[in-house]
Amino acid sequence: MDNRPIGVFDSGIGGLTVLKEVMEQLPGEDIVYFGDTARIPYGSRSKETVIKYFLESVTFLLTKKIKAIVIACNTASALAMEEARKVFDIPMIGVIDPGARAAVGATRNSKIGVIGTEGTINSQAYQKKIRRMLPMAEIIGISCPLFVPIVEEGWENTDVAYITAQKYLLELKEHNIDSLILGCTHYPALRYTIGKVFEDKVTMINPAYETAKATKIMLKELDLISNKLDGGKCSFYVSDDPEKFKRIGGNILRKEIAPIEKVEIEDI
Amino acid sequence: MDNRPIGVFDSGIGGLTVLKEVMEQLPGEDIVYFGDTARIPYGSRSKETVIKYFLESVTFLLTKKIKAIVIACNTASALAMEEARKVFDIPMIGVIDPGARAAVGATRNSKIGVIGTEGTINSQAYQKKIRRMLPMAEIIGISCPLFVPIVEEGWENTDVAYITAQKYLLELKEHNIDSLILGCTHYPALRYTIGKVFEDKVTMINPAYETAKATKIMLKELDLISNKLDGGKCSFYVSDDPEKFKRIGGNILRKEIAPIEKVEIEDI
Repeated sequence: MDNRPIGVFDSGIGGLTVLKEVMEQLPGEDIVYFGDTARIPYGSRSKETVIKYFLESVTFLLTKKIKAIVIACNTASALAMEEARKVFDIPMIGVIDPGARAAVGATRNSKIGVIGTEGTINSQAYQKKIRRMLPMAEIIGISCPLFVPIVEEGWENTDVAYITAQKYLLELKEHNIDSLILGCTHYPALRYTIGKVFEDKVTMINPAYETAKATKIMLKELDLISNKLDGGKCSFYVSDDPEKFKRIGGNILRKEIAPIEKVEIEDI
Repeated sequence: MDNRPIGVFDSGIGGLTVLKEVMEQLPGEDIVYFGDTARIPYGSRSKETVIKYFLESVTFLLTKKIKAIVIACNTASALAMEEARKVFDIPMIGVIDPGARAAVGATRNSKIGVIGTEGTINSQAYQKKIRRMLPMAEIIGISCPLFVPIVEEGWENTDVAYITAQKYLLELKEHNIDSLILGCTHYPALRYTIGKVFEDKVTMINPAYETAKATKIMLKELDLISNKLDGGKCSFYVSDDPEKFKRIGGNILRKEIAPIEKVEIEDI
């Protein structure tokens, strides 16, 4: 039993979708969320830069006496988790493994699509993980840089979203994939539009949901579960102006985000 | 006469459109370009953060013994130039003033549109500047967050670009503007698509072109022009992996970008 909080890291605001799932599946846990909003987007940055930013972020989270870290950011999970595990001695879980495992469980024809940021797709992290579990899998990864700004504009159910999705997903349709990993925290908001493009003939995997499930299992195995059944508290830290985070984040969590504190991440 | 280089600053890659204009209008000048690619996009960050990043970037450029600074980035021009002028004793020119002046010169009905990033539009920098010169002007500012990723995808002449532009520009059309400031370095690439939305009934102002013109005038007035008539050399510095910069930047400049050096901006 351990009542210290769980740390949830994201490069920005999208990780709140993971936080939401963790809160639902582990309602007794306190959580410290850190969004590195001053340095988003991680998705288009080099591996070296993502590692540097992520190690600094973990250093900050550790000052909050956390017992484990959930990496909500697909890019950081793909590019920096391995490196961070060498440096820090704390249980860490990313979104890649649970997402890949769910896709392998869901596919019938072994044709799996992965969509995400440039960084996530180019890292081949989902692809490698899936191939280790299902060596004959045909995996097609597509980066969709317009999806994040579309969601942040609140345009996820517009014609712009639909024809953008048609353009990005055409190759996946042609390959007849039967399951699709939504490999970026923002993408579950596009679920309905993506479903329309595939005429609902594809199983969508939401790594946020799978990661929360895996976190619960990990905490139980390590005997790190809190002894509270509910009433877990959340505190929020960001590295840029909290206002935008509060506004967009409030829509994601469907409740007011407070308290939020701004931290100077470079000064840690 | 002064043969030291001009410093050109941008938050990333878009400023190469300004560099290109400066090279064309001042072919004898050496130029040092710095793109703060590790920390793009400036457009969605808070004023405080933009000022901090910009002051650090100027500090770096000054190590290159430059004689003047051209701020290609609209957001930095809008939010941080004034502050930087208090700190550094070097001639500095941003894209806002030349762009605003050209719009005031072009409009016949005093109805002017400005499009740019969230940071540029919310700062009201173009709006304030225009109003000072033309107090009865009706100015409408719209932020268009999808335009930059559309240009970076190379989708500027697709149906996605067209319907996105229709959506963003509807209010400007309804207000019957007759001139439009393309207030973000990437936007001139969308010139054709934007023209189609307005059925070519609007004068588009490209601040990159106007800024190069204003730079030439400033250097002459301060007697800082180089004594070479052509053959100016360019060197490039970025704060993240140079590969992406080289690839996308090469398309913008239509020639190979070299040499490019990576600098650790936070360690200056």
